[in-house]
Amino acid sequence: MSDSRPIGVFDSGLGGLTVCKEVFRLMPGERIVYLGDAARCPYGNRSAEIIRQFGGQDARFLLAMDIKMLVVACNTVSSVAIDEVQKAAGDVPVVGVVLPGAKAAVSRTAEKKIGVIGTRATIRSESYTRAIQSLDPATKVYTAACPLFVPLAEEGLTDHDISRSTAQRYLYPLMDIGIDCLILGCTHYPLLYEIIQETVGTRIQLIDSAYWTAREAQEILIALNGQSPDRKAGFENSRFFMTDISPTFAETAAAFLGSKLLSVEKVPVENLGTGLPDAAPVIAPQRTG
Amino acid sequence: MSDSRPIGVFDSGLGGLTVCKEVFRLMPGERIVYLGDAARCPYGNRSAEIIRQFGGQDARFLLAMDIKMLVVACNTVSSVAIDEVQKAAGDVPVVGVVLPGAKAAVSRTAEKKIGVIGTRATIRSESYTRAIQSLDPATKVYTAACPLFVPLAEEGLTDHDISRSTAQRYLYPLMDIGIDCLILGCTHYPLLYEIIQETVGTRIQLIDSAYWTAREAQEILIALNGQSPDRKAGFENSRFFMTDISPTFAETAAAFLGSKLLSVEKVPVENLGTGLPDAAPVIAPQRTG
Repeated sequence: MSDSRPIGVFDSGLGGLTVCKEVFRLMPGERIVYLGDAARCPYGNRSAEIIRQFGGQDARFLLAMDIKMLVVACNTVSSVAIDEVQKAAGDVPVVGVVLPGAKAAVSRTAEKKIGVIGTRATIRSESYTRAIQSLDPATKVYTAACPLFVPLAEEGLTDHDISRSTAQRYLYPLMDIGIDCLILGCTHYPLLYEIIQETVGTRIQLIDSAYWTAREAQEILIALNGQSPDRKAGFENSRFFMTDISPTFAETAAAFLGSKLLSVEKVPVENLGTGLPDAAPVIAPQRTG
Repeated sequence: MSDSRPIGVFDSGLGGLTVCKEVFRLMPGERIVYLGDAARCPYGNRSAEIIRQFGGQDARFLLAMDIKMLVVACNTVSSVAIDEVQKAAGDVPVVGVVLPGAKAAVSRTAEKKIGVIGTRATIRSESYTRAIQSLDPATKVYTAACPLFVPLAEEGLTDHDISRSTAQRYLYPLMDIGIDCLILGCTHYPLLYEIIQETVGTRIQLIDSAYWTAREAQEILIALNGQSPDRKAGFENSRFFMTDISPTFAETAAAFLGSKLLSVEKVPVENLGTGLPDAAPVIAPQRTG
């Protein structure tokens, strides 16, 4: 048994491409249909009400495209509106980014002290704290909102003193508490991996939620006998939809994905609500699969 | 002759409140109807197409409310989509933030070397360069996009080493060129006024576009005999609409406005397109006017 339908993945912008990168690495034959709501990103400083509205719209757009699984590659939506997405998804399995990262951290912490960093909305929701404590009530969770990390990553300041000072400002208090695991609770943060590791030192293990989310998706597909019959060219046969394509798009996308996007299609933001894709390709698709 | 109708002011978020602050200071009797599109802010890194779409929607929402003048308190929309707004406005005079700042700088530069800082979209549009050179073709214009200034201002890091390092990174190249005027081409930047002045030194004069925009609005109202008959309580009788109200809203708004907002009304972002205000007050209005 196998299932050749694509996996749906969405994020507020391009950060979710870090999850796609891990999916393609673990499961090279899986196709993805990606939606990035770049016209309204970032979601992380908005109200829960707006995050629920936008997240639900994003989900319904992908659900209309015959996907076999929906990955919410946005920590903010996973934290604040996962129930909204699950309601829309019906029988389609939904994988958020919060639980996989929480599981990985719980099985790795020796001191039972886990740190979590993310956007304001993610941290305010206490989603990671609830997930971790449902897995092990004895584990203590310490959180810090890091709102400057997203713009720093998007500006490409991945090896700059400004990012280093910012990392120290955010992370020193967590280090003082004595955490031994740190969950990167935002899909942008893998771009700052080296600066974060350098700041916290090697005694603290970093948990990249993008990687663990791809692992969780793989485990569910195996359990459901829902893997693709193909063993390669998943990336080449994937589709990438964006609600806005800025002049710096291609460069930022490549930084997240680790390779150049072959094609991208633009979808008007008004169309998200209807769930009817009406996308015009803006870069001629060059598919090799 | 006088005109008691309100002035419409919009911005992508809360930054435009720096323009409102100057309007209330110069013309204490003028009422404002403000729209901040916080559900979709910031506009500064988006494509020109999306900025035109969002800016046109914002303008039409206010134009449906019987305003006597429309102030585009968003440098990004003023730079990229002012023609879209003017088209929607018909006979209602439109004041953007670009021309007033450009005029002030041209009349103040001795060396005829003006620096301009703003968002990526504002700088990419070359709107300030065109405005300045239409006023004086002999003046040279040097620009720098400062995308980290908005998140730093919103995080309240107005007196922090991270902001200081960032300011040096952006501003030292402009200082090396020998500018003697620097236009703050973004409504968020007045919050970083002191750090910017400290970085560039007193030889360089800062031009705050929020102040000069309020001055321009006043001059036009005087010329049209359109000033309010009231001499006070403009602020108390103003209305403030937002498409999203985040948990940190009140604090950020107060930083921009210089005083607490008395009331705020939420308008669903879907309603912007129709021009039909359908706003539910979320904070009970406490009007004293």
